[in-house]
Amino acid sequence: MSEPARDARHRLRRIPDRARYERTDLHAVLDAGFLAHVGFASAEQPFVLPMLYWRDGDDLLLHGSIASRLMGMLGTGIQACVTVTHVDGLVLARSHFHHSVNYRSAVCFGRARLIDDAAAKATALAHFVDAVLPGRAAEARPADRNELAATHVLRMPIEDASVKIRVGGARDDKADLALPHWAGVVPLALQPQRPRPETECRDAPLPASVQRLLDAPSERMP
Amino acid sequence: MSEPARDARHRLRRIPDRARYERTDLHAVLDAGFLAHVGFASAEQPFVLPMLYWRDGDDLLLHGSIASRLMGMLGTGIQACVTVTHVDGLVLARSHFHHSVNYRSAVCFGRARLIDDAAAKATALAHFVDAVLPGRAAEARPADRNELAATHVLRMPIEDASVKIRVGGARDDKADLALPHWAGVVPLALQPQRPRPETECRDAPLPASVQRLLDAPSERMP
Repeated sequence: MSEPARDARHRLRRIPDRARYERTDLHAVLDAGFLAHVGFASAEQPFVLPMLYWRDGDDLLLHGSIASRLMGMLGTGIQACVTVTHVDGLVLARSHFHHSVNYRSAVCFGRARLIDDAAAKATALAHFVDAVLPGRAAEARPADRNELAATHVLRMPIEDASVKIRVGGARDDKADLALPHWAGVVPLALQPQRPRPETECRDAPLPASVQRLLDAPSERMP
Repeated sequence: MSEPARDARHRLRRIPDRARYERTDLHAVLDAGFLAHVGFASAEQPFVLPMLYWRDGDDLLLHGSIASRLMGMLGTGIQACVTVTHVDGLVLARSHFHHSVNYRSAVCFGRARLIDDAAAKATALAHFVDAVLPGRAAEARPADRNELAATHVLRMPIEDASVKIRVGGARDDKADLALPHWAGVVPLALQPQRPRPETECRDAPLPASVQRLLDAPSERMP
């Protein structure tokens, strides 16, 4: 299947200093999701682990259920790569070769450090809750001291980043346009399904955060 | 936010030889998607790039729009990590700490090699098309010799793998059950939207592959 057109790509480096346009793209891709794939290597063995994230300015905050050994290793400040990808649609062309996927991806490079401060961890935890579902943090109990001690959060300033976006339809060869094959795009969207309340909440009204999500399923993707 | 319960995790090693049950889980997670995050390192710099994949027995086939320099590096047989994650729902608890996400993830370790043989590449390309949309390969023109020459496909035998699955509702502390906060799960599903045909196909009927997807949006996720 073919690569996205050159003009659909952006390559940026040292974003804090320049490339305002690309930085806007980068932030838009990052702010549209909450699940990143975080990569790092130990003795040449690479690991790629799913983690929750949210963006704080030009830093990424990371949190996940990864083994504490790996979390500790990542938090020593070794080089890391944090990638976020949203799949927006299936691109069906007349030829196998020109089949593709519409997507937005951000690849961020940097070094992560564990956050020690309890207040900073509490703030981060609330932001993770709101990253998963906007407005949700205000509807639940904040973490207590014991919970914060058991919470591991990393902060990674973004040193370099790359954004790739493919949009639009199939880009078939002219010679293939006469073929009898259908071509087009099937957009994909991650949509909320009917909520499943816990037993004790079965008769309670839905909270505002969930109702907003159901009323207006957003463009947000994991 | 909390880690998934221990009993929701499986750790497997040397899957070709043992752990039949976990191997079934691994295959189920892999077969439910088509987008992987592929990690490898060069001089301690990790890269994590989104790539299309499909499973062939205990091997993963990989294909993507990554820079040919990186594709070549990955294809020399350095250690790689291929991770696939499906997000199934938002877990909303009474406390920030117990918020979570229902997901299925597979982390696969191995070494990838570029496929040279043109016939093997043609077969792989057809499988990638069917991985993105089952039945689609038969509805489009297979690759010709020039297209195969421009196509780079990797094969990675899975040497080790780990599967993690979180299912079920919020796991609040007993003391929090009396709080007035709603708790439950909002399932998420990636669903096809109205197809956008290319101009020449505007009046043509939808192909069978697309119609099947619209009639029965499957559990497949990118």
